[in-house]
Amino acid sequence: IFFKRASTLQTSRCSLAVALQHTRGRCSKVTSTSDDVDQVRTLLQLCVDRYYISPGPTNTELFERGLSCSYGPLGMELRRNLLEQWWHCVTKSRAQVFGINTLSSSKDREARGRRQLRIVESEHLKQILEQQELNKEQLIQQIQTLLQSSPPVRTSLLQGALEQYVPSLELVNRKLPYGLAESGLCFQSSDGSAEVTQTSLVWFCSPRTSSQWLDHWNRQRLKWWRKFALSPSDFSSMDIPEQERVEEASRGVRIIYNFPWGQEPLETLWSRGDAELMQTHKGARSKLQCRDGRKSVPHIVSVTGNMDRGLMAFLFNSLQQLKREDRRQKLQHRKVLKLHPVLAPVKVALDIGRGATLELRQVCEDLLQELMEAKISVWPGYRETMSTSMEQLNAKYDEMGVLFTVVISENTLESGLLQVRSRDTTIKETMHISEIKNFLSRYISAADNI
Amino acid sequence: IFFKRASTLQTSRCSLAVALQHTRGRCSKVTSTSDDVDQVRTLLQLCVDRYYISPGPTNTELFERGLSCSYGPLGMELRRNLLEQWWHCVTKSRAQVFGINTLSSSKDREARGRRQLRIVESEHLKQILEQQELNKEQLIQQIQTLLQSSPPVRTSLLQGALEQYVPSLELVNRKLPYGLAESGLCFQSSDGSAEVTQTSLVWFCSPRTSSQWLDHWNRQRLKWWRKFALSPSDFSSMDIPEQERVEEASRGVRIIYNFPWGQEPLETLWSRGDAELMQTHKGARSKLQCRDGRKSVPHIVSVTGNMDRGLMAFLFNSLQQLKREDRRQKLQHRKVLKLHPVLAPVKVALDIGRGATLELRQVCEDLLQELMEAKISVWPGYRETMSTSMEQLNAKYDEMGVLFTVVISENTLESGLLQVRSRDTTIKETMHISEIKNFLSRYISAADNI
Repeated sequence: IFFKRASTLQTSRCSLAVALQHTRGRCSKVTSTSDDVDQVRTLLQLCVDRYYISPGPTNTELFERGLSCSYGPLGMELRRNLLEQWWHCVTKSRAQVFGINTLSSSKDREARGRRQLRIVESEHLKQILEQQELNKEQLIQQIQTLLQSSPPVRTSLLQGALEQYVPSLELVNRKLPYGLAESGLCFQSSDGSAEVTQTSLVWFCSPRTSSQWLDHWNRQRLKWWRKFALSPSDFSSMDIPEQERVEEASRGVRIIYNFPWGQEPLETLWSRGDAELMQTHKGARSKLQCRDGRKSVPHIVSVTGNMDRGLMAFLFNSLQQLKREDRRQKLQHRKVLKLHPVLAPVKVALDIGRGATLELRQVCEDLLQELMEAKISVWPGYRETMSTSMEQLNAKYDEMGVLFTVVISENTLESGLLQVRSRDTTIKETMHISEIKNFLSRYISAADNI
Repeated sequence: IFFKRASTLQTSRCSLAVALQHTRGRCSKVTSTSDDVDQVRTLLQLCVDRYYISPGPTNTELFERGLSCSYGPLGMELRRNLLEQWWHCVTKSRAQVFGINTLSSSKDREARGRRQLRIVESEHLKQILEQQELNKEQLIQQIQTLLQSSPPVRTSLLQGALEQYVPSLELVNRKLPYGLAESGLCFQSSDGSAEVTQTSLVWFCSPRTSSQWLDHWNRQRLKWWRKFALSPSDFSSMDIPEQERVEEASRGVRIIYNFPWGQEPLETLWSRGDAELMQTHKGARSKLQCRDGRKSVPHIVSVTGNMDRGLMAFLFNSLQQLKREDRRQKLQHRKVLKLHPVLAPVKVALDIGRGATLELRQVCEDLLQELMEAKISVWPGYRETMSTSMEQLNAKYDEMGVLFTVVISENTLESGLLQVRSRDTTIKETMHISEIKNFLSRYISAADNI
């Protein structure tokens, strides 16, 4: 079995000898295992240096394990863009998908699973422990009462969607198929607790079509992941072997990414039957039935993604390391984060060249405002007073994945012309300041529609 | 003191005699307390009926208390729009604001406050309780160890931003002022736990300007709330009395909304000094200093919002109840949710009139796709097969707050003309099908730019 479960990641990362299933396509080829270790180290360092994730070994470890970590400004924006694209893709599909927002903890919800987590008032628990006069039995009794009143936290978004099935049925006039979509934090129990940004589509369909729908969503989701990839073949999907199946499910598929240390799941699709829906609504069959000729209780196809690991996958996928000689024939290592234009957290950086600083800054401020109002994310590089060469700046912006760098100089004050450098081609073009906003908007939306 | 604290809401709602501070402006006037009770009941029922919040008394109670509840598709979309607007407003401000995303629970974070909450593996705790061979002391010992390893959950976003101060300092080249913005779930301990969608801007500025910045952000935020209001005077701001101040703070302001049962805070601003920042970074003054001439440790202005209560405020604010006679001179009660065009969860509903159903549906599907691709949220009313009169449909859409209703009929197939009804004017216009997308886009962005 090639597939590495999340729980075995710690070991699999140590044994980087795992054969890579695919070549890295357009990306710089990774051929040996020591290259893999280097690549991982390089990317993690870059993520910290370039404000994707917050520094610190604990935080980097969370990130590597595909869990939520503390994200810096660029990571936060990338996460936003990713969730926005997921949302747009799932709800834009020709079928009916509605968004919901359920609670992450709820007293009313039954806790499930062996490793359930509850939010406990720890001071209350401490007070119980400090009561000298209690005997052991009374102590246990009191703690059990506290535990009962402590709400369990969700480990997945499925339960919330199952609960919303009945109220949403009216919305679709009892007609199948339809889906409920949600994204949000879920908690996992693993050495203390850990959180994950989950996306979930719970699809209700007639029993005889559930297998086709599983295939449909598998194709849709894989297409989505690949759309934003620099090297699409690193994303693939595979059936889940019978022995790994969850109890209720008849079939499952995983969308996986080929990390340097092995494959890891990004999204899991299950065709799960109706058992969980029946259980959630205590078998009230008549409440659950819908109008599809046979008055059947729908079957469920669940599509559950881990967007924290998805974010990491796109970072690994887009890192290109290039070697080239500079003017003085010195070997330069250029690192570029070629994130898809739609995902790139910063679309354009504004900088100033030589000239009257005060006036140039004013031009930058005005342009910044104009771009921000058009919802194009800008990096205000001109505000830094450090003297950095344009070459160093470009290297920094490439590592940040900034799509374009605009330089405003003396010349701009005279003629309105500025210089625009592309991350992907490194070509510098001259453009009029009045054109830049439309140029960027068109560029991004063109990339979106390919 | 007019101001009602969240904790006293239960009582204040019972004593609806609280004098209203402002008239409801353009909204239907509320004059007596029994009207207030009616208004609350009407709005809550409407929120459940029209897919803003999920049904059930527990859920409605959470909603009323200004806590996160389970939102239906429309509530979820309204929450999205609200958070999007908040984000856009806070980061678009001329000053430097960066987004971050911190963990909601973390073992590394010190738990604060008297009523701290921790995520506990409840099965582990149960196992400890079941160990017969332990004596009372051993039992206490084991539970304390478990408690220590259980991560505390955040009660506000402040702590995360304080931790991110040092890594973000490099980003701004050690120059003040700048801010860190975040939105996310926070947990409160209150009769079991409860969650709140918080927004947070933590603003780092030089000590001598902190008071001015407090005023600046107060003005900005109040302007923002009022921008989306039907009756802006229901939103106001007031200084927090000295006796209610938190320990570290020198001054505080609250932005409040005038609910039928009294005033409640939507957003709280504090000028908090540097004590908490020093404490978070264990007094490492040199790490905290920035370049503002005096090498000072910055003071903090915190701007913390409750977007769940904010969402409820906009719903109350936008509900207009009108009485008018219909054709048969029967008194009609018309309820319209006049949400701001930018916030309205559904911008347009598509329905079909008389004609060849199959062809009309196809036209609707195509138009739906076109609008969704332009990111205009559409309600696919034409998919319902129930025969409802156009009058009933309009009443339903008005309660949902749908901006426009488009009716496609036989006529559309022939001439391309369709009928567009406005929620706010109830006027029906004829428009060509090719114009509708641009009309809607222009209408929404015009409302955004007022």
